[in-house]
Amino acid sequence: MRRALELAATPGVPHGPNPRVGCVLLAPDGSEIAEGFHRGAGTPHAEAAALAEAGAAARGATAVVTLEPCNHTGRTGPCARALVEAGVARVVFAQPDPNPEAAGGAQTLRDAGIAVELGLLEHESRRLNRAWTFAMERGRPFVTWKFAATLDGRSAAADGSSRWITDEPARRDVHRLRSACDAILVGTGTVLRDDPALTVRDEVGAPADRQPLRVVMGERDLPQDAKVFDDAAETVHLRTRDVAAVLAELHARGCQHLFLEGGPTVASAFVGAGLVDEVVGYLAPKLLGSGRNAVADLGIESITDALDLVVEDVTVLGSDVRITGRLRGKD
Amino acid sequence: MRRALELAATPGVPHGPNPRVGCVLLAPDGSEIAEGFHRGAGTPHAEAAALAEAGAAARGATAVVTLEPCNHTGRTGPCARALVEAGVARVVFAQPDPNPEAAGGAQTLRDAGIAVELGLLEHESRRLNRAWTFAMERGRPFVTWKFAATLDGRSAAADGSSRWITDEPARRDVHRLRSACDAILVGTGTVLRDDPALTVRDEVGAPADRQPLRVVMGERDLPQDAKVFDDAAETVHLRTRDVAAVLAELHARGCQHLFLEGGPTVASAFVGAGLVDEVVGYLAPKLLGSGRNAVADLGIESITDALDLVVEDVTVLGSDVRITGRLRGKD
Repeated sequence: MRRALELAATPGVPHGPNPRVGCVLLAPDGSEIAEGFHRGAGTPHAEAAALAEAGAAARGATAVVTLEPCNHTGRTGPCARALVEAGVARVVFAQPDPNPEAAGGAQTLRDAGIAVELGLLEHESRRLNRAWTFAMERGRPFVTWKFAATLDGRSAAADGSSRWITDEPARRDVHRLRSACDAILVGTGTVLRDDPALTVRDEVGAPADRQPLRVVMGERDLPQDAKVFDDAAETVHLRTRDVAAVLAELHARGCQHLFLEGGPTVASAFVGAGLVDEVVGYLAPKLLGSGRNAVADLGIESITDALDLVVEDVTVLGSDVRITGRLRGKD
Repeated sequence: MRRALELAATPGVPHGPNPRVGCVLLAPDGSEIAEGFHRGAGTPHAEAAALAEAGAAARGATAVVTLEPCNHTGRTGPCARALVEAGVARVVFAQPDPNPEAAGGAQTLRDAGIAVELGLLEHESRRLNRAWTFAMERGRPFVTWKFAATLDGRSAAADGSSRWITDEPARRDVHRLRSACDAILVGTGTVLRDDPALTVRDEVGAPADRQPLRVVMGERDLPQDAKVFDDAAETVHLRTRDVAAVLAELHARGCQHLFLEGGPTVASAFVGAGLVDEVVGYLAPKLLGSGRNAVADLGIESITDALDLVVEDVTVLGSDVRITGRLRGKD
């Protein structure tokens, strides 16, 4: 299963609507017959890739897969069926398929007399497809809120100046995180004030091939010459302040992971609605003593009502510190 | 020299006004003859301890010392003279003595015909006696400012509640840092509002044998039943708002390392006067969105004027994160 997870995590697999899946076919003596992984939408699923490599040798084999083999016909046929037809004797998978349309693969296999085991390294498979799993289970995108602040929690100085709070390594890291998401969201206020491009760019400023959807929320009009309306990436302006409605719309568009880069107002709206799942704070070792607070009013009165995060990672990036935490109570 | 530094850093050496010093005596063939370290005020200096152990074997030896042998007679005699009298042939030391009363040892040795080398691992020796070196060179205590805040820079919620922002491991760590300092300072506002004990206590709440001086600054009267006036440690109330005057008074009392635990007002007064040398921030992974900011107005208008820290350490303590930084431009 570790090998299957490694295959699933193969670098360079294009990001898309599908989960990352790896599969290893083992002979009855435990030796490896074939392996495969999913390379992105429209290409064979991991099981199909491994079965194709194995050919007739798949008969009597054990298939070790990171995700429950799918049961539905999309752009490719159902993998559960393909495993049955190839004569596989046993299937071990890590994570049950949370996609209601694709689930039921385990039952199909059992009905065909194939031994099925599940749950091995399930946690690791869930992590690998964290946003996809979340979106399938909850029916909305996983929301990461990123903010940059000084050590004393300011996102801008008294005169409104805020460029640059963090250094180059932290800013590059933001582009890396952006590139792993499906959409980047800000409020109209940020567009009107900062006119950000909201694109993924590499170290020399060249745009990445794949760009997340740019989303601006809020009721104010935006100038048509704003950078978010250039050709560098697709943009939608959602004329609402209802964060749940925004997430519903993005879910309908296939967005599984939303990267929230808005100012304090937008961030507070999401946090206040309980719709932030992960917080990534880039803390610059600076003190301002005044200026805009990175986080605006959340309606919290007492310390006992503070929003609690579970710190998952602390990394020093150049002169800055990145702290990543999950909202407590979210898995 | 590494061994001499190890000796100097021997755990359990009581904290006092003197620097930590280690000494190794080597025979001409490089083998070790004796070693010594300073165990605290009133006990033999490191060189004297090593010479006593070596006896006649010190003749012709090389003394490796972390600090320039002292040249003055305090509670113990001058070490430079003792090395000359023992017939040592060569002295290697890491750090020149920054104490104007004790310096000149190298010259005394050279005048007696002893070969002298200096500068080996000087940085390490300076670090070992960081506050002592700083106080000797600058004529004032080294100032560490500690604060605890949420990830969004708040030190209290909207209703004023602030206990406890950080968890037990962070609070224990504060006691460890307190115990390494000579004095702990807060403003009258903190005493009036929180009535803190400002003592060093261990994990079960028992007070440590050695307690730093408790310092309260500010012009307001304090109730005589405030905890800082109990018998657990010495306390002074300095009725001034002049932070430079406070440091001068503490320096005169032999304080080399001041631990600043005041609220935003006192902290901002020190930071604003350029009299904070190190910042230790305990960040709790919580969001409040409102409430008291951990750092109050510093008179900074623009992001380009922000106070810059150089991050020296980032440590996860339980659920919290400790970030330690030096003010840029301070060594």
